[in-house]
Amino acid sequence: MEPKQYYIGIDVGGTSVKEGLFDEDGNLLAKASVPTPPIVDAAGFAAVTEAIDQVVAKAQIPRAFVAGIGLAVPCPIPASGDAKVKANIAINLPELRIAIQKHCPDAVVKYENDANAAAMGEAWLGSAKGVQNVVMVTIGTGVGGGVIVNGDVVSGVVGAGGEIGHMCLNPAEERTCGCGGHGHLEQYSSATGVVSNYLAECKKAGVDPIELTGPSDSKDVFQACREGDKLALAAADTMADYLGRALALIANVVDPEMFLIGGGASASADVYLDKAREYFKQYALSASRETPIKVASLGNDAGIIGAAYVALRAAGK
Amino acid sequence: MEPKQYYIGIDVGGTSVKEGLFDEDGNLLAKASVPTPPIVDAAGFAAVTEAIDQVVAKAQIPRAFVAGIGLAVPCPIPASGDAKVKANIAINLPELRIAIQKHCPDAVVKYENDANAAAMGEAWLGSAKGVQNVVMVTIGTGVGGGVIVNGDVVSGVVGAGGEIGHMCLNPAEERTCGCGGHGHLEQYSSATGVVSNYLAECKKAGVDPIELTGPSDSKDVFQACREGDKLALAAADTMADYLGRALALIANVVDPEMFLIGGGASASADVYLDKAREYFKQYALSASRETPIKVASLGNDAGIIGAAYVALRAAGK
Repeated sequence: MEPKQYYIGIDVGGTSVKEGLFDEDGNLLAKASVPTPPIVDAAGFAAVTEAIDQVVAKAQIPRAFVAGIGLAVPCPIPASGDAKVKANIAINLPELRIAIQKHCPDAVVKYENDANAAAMGEAWLGSAKGVQNVVMVTIGTGVGGGVIVNGDVVSGVVGAGGEIGHMCLNPAEERTCGCGGHGHLEQYSSATGVVSNYLAECKKAGVDPIELTGPSDSKDVFQACREGDKLALAAADTMADYLGRALALIANVVDPEMFLIGGGASASADVYLDKAREYFKQYALSASRETPIKVASLGNDAGIIGAAYVALRAAGK
Repeated sequence: MEPKQYYIGIDVGGTSVKEGLFDEDGNLLAKASVPTPPIVDAAGFAAVTEAIDQVVAKAQIPRAFVAGIGLAVPCPIPASGDAKVKANIAINLPELRIAIQKHCPDAVVKYENDANAAAMGEAWLGSAKGVQNVVMVTIGTGVGGGVIVNGDVVSGVVGAGGEIGHMCLNPAEERTCGCGGHGHLEQYSSATGVVSNYLAECKKAGVDPIELTGPSDSKDVFQACREGDKLALAAADTMADYLGRALALIANVVDPEMFLIGGGASASADVYLDKAREYFKQYALSASRETPIKVASLGNDAGIIGAAYVALRAAGK
């Protein structure tokens, strides 16, 4: 009998590097977390490999039994595996790979974009468990996406597969998206977008907005929706309209079995999801109208789970 | 040594059923064509199987050496293989499959949507030869599409994968698409759409249109473009704008290595393709802007070639 094999998922975020050790059945055996250092030199790489040692030690697994290490990173990763676009954090992907490979010579090392990894996590153990064709939309400060076809992430030739936050839905928009474009999904349907929609409604109505804790704090706007605030409801309606339209467009391209909504703003899905479903039905081809739109279930763990699953698949399991 | 294996591609169109016999290297060994009968009874099924016998006889191949038969059909074919949407022609797919299987018990029989089959043909022997990730847009009376990811067609759960003609790009459009929707790509960028764009420009300008042979005869409009007709050029510009926008949206979902333009209106690509490329760059994510947009090369044979290739892949080659 072959010895059992294990997989480590590493979620490299702006504030922390989270690691999880899993067996092939998806059982989480150990976790670790360190504040994100600049991952550009020996000290930065060591922070990652030391956390590998931590989870291996906690789970009492020989390091040689780790067959794969997946890393969810905040930048596009093309199918070829070499990032061409700079990440939002200080990270040297080629050198980090060498450091990890040297530390764990028996493991396959694989990078994946963080939104794609979250989608893979949901497909392994979450709301889309066992579903081979699913599109996940991650709604946070921005809008990310992961497109899974036949069980694998569609990374794309430049890593732009699933970059659905930058789908251009309203070319006439005057305001500029963070990427320099105009009328992108993210401008209306991210947490930041909902706040922006709300402020625009207030301005139009000549009404002072409610107090907001920050420019991406959609929670306050969603709470105002629950209390019946008409301007907040109009802002959420705009968000749902664009979201429904984007999902319908995606259905015309890859026609998935299911859509998932994840990310921080998925906690307020009670406010906008039914509306988004209605808009989806309005814009979708008749044959696609019944495609379910569900809420993701793994929360912050989707990254480490998905990264481990990506590693497991890369190892040929 | 195993005997060489052969594949038959059948393109079931509105006016004719075309068949081609290929070897595994894509050499076309024999062709046949019959007027399309209602393919709903023994006589209709026999028309198809008799054409199989014809190509086999012409190429002097034992029928048992045919390892796969692919059929390109004018309706969505979901990944499960059972069409849920009615085709535009009289065809009984389950019974036709039984008839072919009975006639050729050694062959794998596989259906594919015609636009998807054309894309597979181009990926096997045409402009996208050897490309594993490509999206083909077929511009004729309507707009069809084929999305290929990792070498396989993305059929989708209801067969709506690649139904890009019905991407909703302008929800404010008052005119209705053939499918009942509003503001779909097909309404602006099909042959019919270009004529419609042109008539709208003439109406706006209070000018009598040039004589057109029919409502989908974009050739006359494209010729007027070549002669510098400003209203025709505006119509082609609208077509290119929507086409470029749709391709940019698709790139944000699957980020292919290449786009292909095929179908009847691809013969007039000289008029609109450079413009469409410019619009694509304008709407696309910066990382995707250089994705090539090429013209398909197989013309009317794309269907039989692609259907044969689908059969070859289904047979595990």
